[in-house]
Amino acid sequence: MSLPSNSLLLMPVIDLHLPESLLFAPPPILAVVAAENAPILLTGVLLSLVIIYLASKIGAEISQYLNFPPVLGELVSGVIVGVSAFDWIVFADSDLPATESGVMFVLQWIYHISPAIATNVFESQSEVISVLAELGVIILLFEIGLESDLRQLKAVGVQAVVVACVGVAVPFAAGTAGLMVIFHVAAIPAIFAGAALTATSIGITSKVLSELGQLNSTEGQIIVGAAVIDDVLGIIVLAVVASLAKTGSIDVGNVIYLIFSATAFLLGSILLAGIFNKGFVLIVDTLKTRGNIVIPAFILAFFMAFLGNAIHLEAILGAFAAGLVLDETDARNELDGLVKPVADLLVPIFFVTVGAQADLGVLNPADPANWGGLLVAGFLITIAIVGKLVTGWVVFGKPKINRLAIGIGMIPRGEVGLVFAGIGAASGVIDKSLEAAIILMVIVTTFAAPPFLRIAFDRSNIAPSEIE
Amino acid sequence: MSLPSNSLLLMPVIDLHLPESLLFAPPPILAVVAAENAPILLTGVLLSLVIIYLASKIGAEISQYLNFPPVLGELVSGVIVGVSAFDWIVFADSDLPATESGVMFVLQWIYHISPAIATNVFESQSEVISVLAELGVIILLFEIGLESDLRQLKAVGVQAVVVACVGVAVPFAAGTAGLMVIFHVAAIPAIFAGAALTATSIGITSKVLSELGQLNSTEGQIIVGAAVIDDVLGIIVLAVVASLAKTGSIDVGNVIYLIFSATAFLLGSILLAGIFNKGFVLIVDTLKTRGNIVIPAFILAFFMAFLGNAIHLEAILGAFAAGLVLDETDARNELDGLVKPVADLLVPIFFVTVGAQADLGVLNPADPANWGGLLVAGFLITIAIVGKLVTGWVVFGKPKINRLAIGIGMIPRGEVGLVFAGIGAASGVIDKSLEAAIILMVIVTTFAAPPFLRIAFDRSNIAPSEIE
Repeated sequence: MSLPSNSLLLMPVIDLHLPESLLFAPPPILAVVAAENAPILLTGVLLSLVIIYLASKIGAEISQYLNFPPVLGELVSGVIVGVSAFDWIVFADSDLPATESGVMFVLQWIYHISPAIATNVFESQSEVISVLAELGVIILLFEIGLESDLRQLKAVGVQAVVVACVGVAVPFAAGTAGLMVIFHVAAIPAIFAGAALTATSIGITSKVLSELGQLNSTEGQIIVGAAVIDDVLGIIVLAVVASLAKTGSIDVGNVIYLIFSATAFLLGSILLAGIFNKGFVLIVDTLKTRGNIVIPAFILAFFMAFLGNAIHLEAILGAFAAGLVLDETDARNELDGLVKPVADLLVPIFFVTVGAQADLGVLNPADPANWGGLLVAGFLITIAIVGKLVTGWVVFGKPKINRLAIGIGMIPRGEVGLVFAGIGAASGVIDKSLEAAIILMVIVTTFAAPPFLRIAFDRSNIAPSEIE
Repeated sequence: MSLPSNSLLLMPVIDLHLPESLLFAPPPILAVVAAENAPILLTGVLLSLVIIYLASKIGAEISQYLNFPPVLGELVSGVIVGVSAFDWIVFADSDLPATESGVMFVLQWIYHISPAIATNVFESQSEVISVLAELGVIILLFEIGLESDLRQLKAVGVQAVVVACVGVAVPFAAGTAGLMVIFHVAAIPAIFAGAALTATSIGITSKVLSELGQLNSTEGQIIVGAAVIDDVLGIIVLAVVASLAKTGSIDVGNVIYLIFSATAFLLGSILLAGIFNKGFVLIVDTLKTRGNIVIPAFILAFFMAFLGNAIHLEAILGAFAAGLVLDETDARNELDGLVKPVADLLVPIFFVTVGAQADLGVLNPADPANWGGLLVAGFLITIAIVGKLVTGWVVFGKPKINRLAIGIGMIPRGEVGLVFAGIGAASGVIDKSLEAAIILMVIVTTFAAPPFLRIAFDRSNIAPSEIE
């Protein structure tokens, strides 16, 4: 036979092209294993959820007690229960075998299952928890959309827009260019990491400002307005970058198409909001059975998220648009109250999972092999801080304004930065070291901003200029 | 080369028996496929949820409009979108290939994926929706537990206990014996189907009674009390039967152990409720971050469900016990409001899934091959009706009571019957024909009871004897 010697290596590829009738036949052995494993899988999912909820609540409470944002505690407790430390919540795409997972250890102890079945259950369970985490981030963005008041944006005006645009452009450009030129990172992961530096956390910033009594000062209004705008910009950037990552190549025409379609998707939803709202209120009033508000709202959120994915953008862009749309509904207050417990249950799964999946061990300074990754992390943190600090100096026409406070106020990254890390890692675009660097960047900027913001406002002898 | 001609087909099977070290190594090809597929899987899950929610809401509203319980509409609309009719929501354990699933058809159209990847995504998506449905039934039982007022049980007294016990024992014994003797069904599926006949639906019965203004009559109080008790008995029976099904053999010692442990688990939880409650209130009051009530409640619910599975009983037994425990908490009213939207979102997934998975085509009377299955269904429906009708005549010391109304009031099966069908089918204990027969039994008893109950109360010339 005259087959080339590497024909065997090609066989798995050939297998994928077997006649359809064979491929479509249900694989009997896997199916039987799955049916037997269904209760084991459920037990594993339940145990994982219990651990995730315990970790998130303990982390959030400690963080709150120490005057840091609760989300930071959820992230850090995720790191503790995850692959960096205790290995209780481990995912199949890490390099760890099933036996190293704490949850799987318990399952093996309860059910005396064979290693092969353990691996099977481990993979299925990872997949289920990952989807739950993705539903969590969809609901998170839906809630952020619901809370973003578009009318408020019009009020804060041009100063906030300028601060937001500079605060997105500088870290993105400097981060991407630096990673490519200095650290020779490939273009797509470099763009992804650069994009992760863009979005200021509205939640964290406005909480600290409100504690300092600066929420209604000119500085506070500019910071919050800019944070809302750069969230929107950040989500558009993420949709574009993630879509680039899927195709694997950067084509100028494609980038323009993606930016255009992401913006059109968001603006279109907002322009159609009036029609959506009338329809939504009509439906809610017509329905007589349980869930008359929450089910239509989630049909819209999940359908828009589906649409976002289907047009090769991102599910979270759709969920965010759905939130913006329903933001102005008459039923909004009631809807907020109904979305809250659902978000309380699903969003922590996302934050804990992001922490648990990130292997901060790859940045352990004790191992010289990690020093390169540490340098990258240090670079990202520097750009994240400097890139936002400069925004204070682009505010014009306000000579007495506290420029340092505005710059510092823009520093904390939060949810959206973690969304970048989570989606980047899940899609395999960024490697472990870059993922860990982004998460470290989020942790450092979030920890650092509150104390420095206090100092910046205290140091200035100028009383906070009240909004005119 | 002397390989047999079918050696290629055997390769996947042989692969499963590789040495452990290889099994634990992450399979590179599958892992790559899975990472690429993650967004496709999410798109499929989102589309499935949109279809499930649309179906459940349309079904519930039509059912409500026609004066039938909403849950029946959710079940029937599940049948319509499922394997019996339109094939939109199909599960990998049905005999249908991925291409026949409506959701997969859309995914293939959007992503142009190969048949092999489609099958991979189809299986993962089935698994995720199944776990969501299982979480739905866990939350359903948690909610039923929360709504079951244990103090009310003490009030309705011995009459309700007698009615409940007879109404559980007669259909269970007659159903199981009949299936084994007349239809030669094997012992374990026969016991499973017999057990599915036991539990009256509290929700459906009390809704019809309240419409008739009979909720506070002696008859109404006996019916509702007995329905609460036979729910508890039914869940214990389910836990025991499902556990028997897992081991596959019926050993008298094991049955006694299971009945004892299920009862002890439930009674133990109730006895410890006081301590649980104090601890729960203390925790809720201490926590300062979001989700301070809902997260501890779900930690308890999921942990008890985990425990139920871990001691080889059932997750829903644990969730029900958790609901009973928190039922008497001071924070209960607030908790009810928080659990409601979560239940509104997850419980319909369960009901629609049960309908979608059941292939009512196996009972199509046009095909003579199905006549055996139809006879079984007819038998189950007869036993379900007669076995509850007799309960009216065991009430003692109340000569003027409307015995027929009590008997009819106990007839509608609902959630718990569907739980039996869902769990039985998922674990492979009952075959498609028996699953379809149980679901038909639930539909018929639920449709039939309300009109006959109206007739029974109207016909009696005796005014409803008010409760003393």
